[in-house]
Amino acid sequence: MKQNTATKVESPCQQERILPPATRFVELTGDYGSDEFMLRSGGRLKGVTIAYECWGELSLNQDNAVLIFTGLSPNAHACSSPEDPTPGWWEYMIGPGKPIDTNRFFVICVNSLGGCFGSTGPLSENPDTGESYNLDFPEITIEDVAKAGHHAIQELGIDHLHAVVGASMGGMTSLAYALQYPGEVDYLVSVSAAARALPFTIAVRSLQREIVRSDPAWNKGYYAASEEPVQGMLVARKLGLLSYRASEEWRQRFNRARVSPERRSTEPFGVEFEVESYLNHNACKFAAIFDANSYLYLSRAMDLFDVAEHGGSVNAGLAKIQTKRALVIGVETDILFPIEQQIEIADGLRKAGRSVDFHYLSSINGHDSFLIDKEHFAPVIADFFAESCIALDSKDRDPYAN
Amino acid sequence: MKQNTATKVESPCQQERILPPATRFVELTGDYGSDEFMLRSGGRLKGVTIAYECWGELSLNQDNAVLIFTGLSPNAHACSSPEDPTPGWWEYMIGPGKPIDTNRFFVICVNSLGGCFGSTGPLSENPDTGESYNLDFPEITIEDVAKAGHHAIQELGIDHLHAVVGASMGGMTSLAYALQYPGEVDYLVSVSAAARALPFTIAVRSLQREIVRSDPAWNKGYYAASEEPVQGMLVARKLGLLSYRASEEWRQRFNRARVSPERRSTEPFGVEFEVESYLNHNACKFAAIFDANSYLYLSRAMDLFDVAEHGGSVNAGLAKIQTKRALVIGVETDILFPIEQQIEIADGLRKAGRSVDFHYLSSINGHDSFLIDKEHFAPVIADFFAESCIALDSKDRDPYAN
Repeated sequence: MKQNTATKVESPCQQERILPPATRFVELTGDYGSDEFMLRSGGRLKGVTIAYECWGELSLNQDNAVLIFTGLSPNAHACSSPEDPTPGWWEYMIGPGKPIDTNRFFVICVNSLGGCFGSTGPLSENPDTGESYNLDFPEITIEDVAKAGHHAIQELGIDHLHAVVGASMGGMTSLAYALQYPGEVDYLVSVSAAARALPFTIAVRSLQREIVRSDPAWNKGYYAASEEPVQGMLVARKLGLLSYRASEEWRQRFNRARVSPERRSTEPFGVEFEVESYLNHNACKFAAIFDANSYLYLSRAMDLFDVAEHGGSVNAGLAKIQTKRALVIGVETDILFPIEQQIEIADGLRKAGRSVDFHYLSSINGHDSFLIDKEHFAPVIADFFAESCIALDSKDRDPYAN
Repeated sequence: MKQNTATKVESPCQQERILPPATRFVELTGDYGSDEFMLRSGGRLKGVTIAYECWGELSLNQDNAVLIFTGLSPNAHACSSPEDPTPGWWEYMIGPGKPIDTNRFFVICVNSLGGCFGSTGPLSENPDTGESYNLDFPEITIEDVAKAGHHAIQELGIDHLHAVVGASMGGMTSLAYALQYPGEVDYLVSVSAAARALPFTIAVRSLQREIVRSDPAWNKGYYAASEEPVQGMLVARKLGLLSYRASEEWRQRFNRARVSPERRSTEPFGVEFEVESYLNHNACKFAAIFDANSYLYLSRAMDLFDVAEHGGSVNAGLAKIQTKRALVIGVETDILFPIEQQIEIADGLRKAGRSVDFHYLSSINGHDSFLIDKEHFAPVIADFFAESCIALDSKDRDPYAN
């Protein structure tokens, strides 16, 4: 395991791609004793590093580990810690006394394989050339992202998970984890995920990729670190925000408000409405730090995901999952991973005899609700983990000890 | 009135911007006896031409004229005729014996002011410079598009409309027409329209405009006819298609089908799924013929539209409409102009004492349903026009004559 180090990458937006200071690293040994990590596509990677953060303490009998996979864009800094007190991307959900209680659980969040926040990805040095992989990085799949997370926790000495948790792409990855390692995880939390990518979301992501590829600075994938396709990433992210949020919430928040004259763009057809300014502001934060090729690889990985490839049908794929209990959450206003896809996951697991808690939340924040809507999400996830603790207590501990 | 002429513009996509052969032209005299057409923004245009097509015969007492405004992208060729037998964009709706029956009505469809299919727009010659306006074209609004249609039919000798009809942007324009000329139209048909642009649709259109503006070929609006920003228009149109259609219909049509190997793109992250190929094919047809600046102007005009500017509130604006009866249609799967906006129009008209037929159709084709879903749309519009004919008959004609 590498020492905790802060790595700095210059970005052309006057922002720096700084890894959160609590980031840790684990180097994976390869498959079958080799130094190569085998990918589902047939590709291979030498010397894979996975970046992660962790909170809480691993119990002596190692039965309290919770692995969290992220959506496409977050890094491994899911919540704050004494080492890094800045709020993480799921701050309300993870921590002492929070729904995923770090007084009780050892929580690990990994940066996805293919990502750009410390894990091996297109920005990493290709050991064969000494240069960044860029488009020489092999095709990756959600199954590979799950496998890299699995290998990472094994390197940390953990053979069994109490739970695997993920939302959006992280939910897909959690499904892939649970079906690839069926004996190794007791509880599954799948939030606003999908058992397979459907054409509307494929179209959204395809368009985001085309926007990035259309930016001349992308340079067919071989851009210099100082000349990243920031404009393409900015616009692609705006399209992401359109698909992640919901119409009604924006109506309540912005309606037809204009930006004040001094904030109005002088460019023709530039910013005039508050909603346009909001998109600019939020997308810029992302475009400044996310590597374009990482984005393309992870985006395509989501398109390729289809649980039906693990058994001939979605239900047959889901039937490989052997968790004690699963929590499946969907949101009414999610247009990207709609409720029908959450029902598909819950139904498939139930048909296979699994115990499933299914929640259909009326959040108005669309696909991103899990990041924002503490009021609806916190109690559902808190209850699920509290009940899983009772099982843990009755199995391994003296319930009268306290 | 100009003679019918076919105008040809070379396009860089190996396609030509050819006006449909039945296109006719009318030159507007200006406001207040001047040669200038006054715009809502304060801008002025000299020598405005409006392109149109027409079908059927104007009755002797001129009581059977139906004016159709288009969505953002169509030309005036709404249906075929002996002069141009190619199908129009609303072929199933307009024609002899069809819901808008040209045996009964004199139907006129105008190309919008600001458009690029024969009406004055950014591509037109600026009489002050002898060059295309490009971004020297003044800001236009939906109200101006309605006014240009109004002046056009007046030039044709029509002072009163039996009906004004429009869907999408055309529906907004029809609302603007009815409220600006309240004594001059008896029936109103508003399909999948909006009384005001809301932030989600403003965001979609803002992003489309940014995509076009990000194409280096756009050249800050002053591109040559041979170097149009086709890639930007292609991607912007794909985003349009995403917002015009509905997820479930694509799931049924494409699901996760891959393109055959010989049709697969050799570019990295190029076309792999059928839905991506479909988007390419459809968007290319549009990008090849639609002028980028026209697109920007009309797109912004939709953002600016707000009936509340005509009286202080949406309801006060709608209360200016004095039609005998209005037909308001919304579609369940429309994410761009959602059903709440159709209810807003219908409720506002009813509160003002207007008679309203409101239909909520379960079409699965999203915002574009009116173009595709003959089964749901044809009977509703046929019934509305048939009932309006009874009123026409009882007022002006001997009902026993036949």
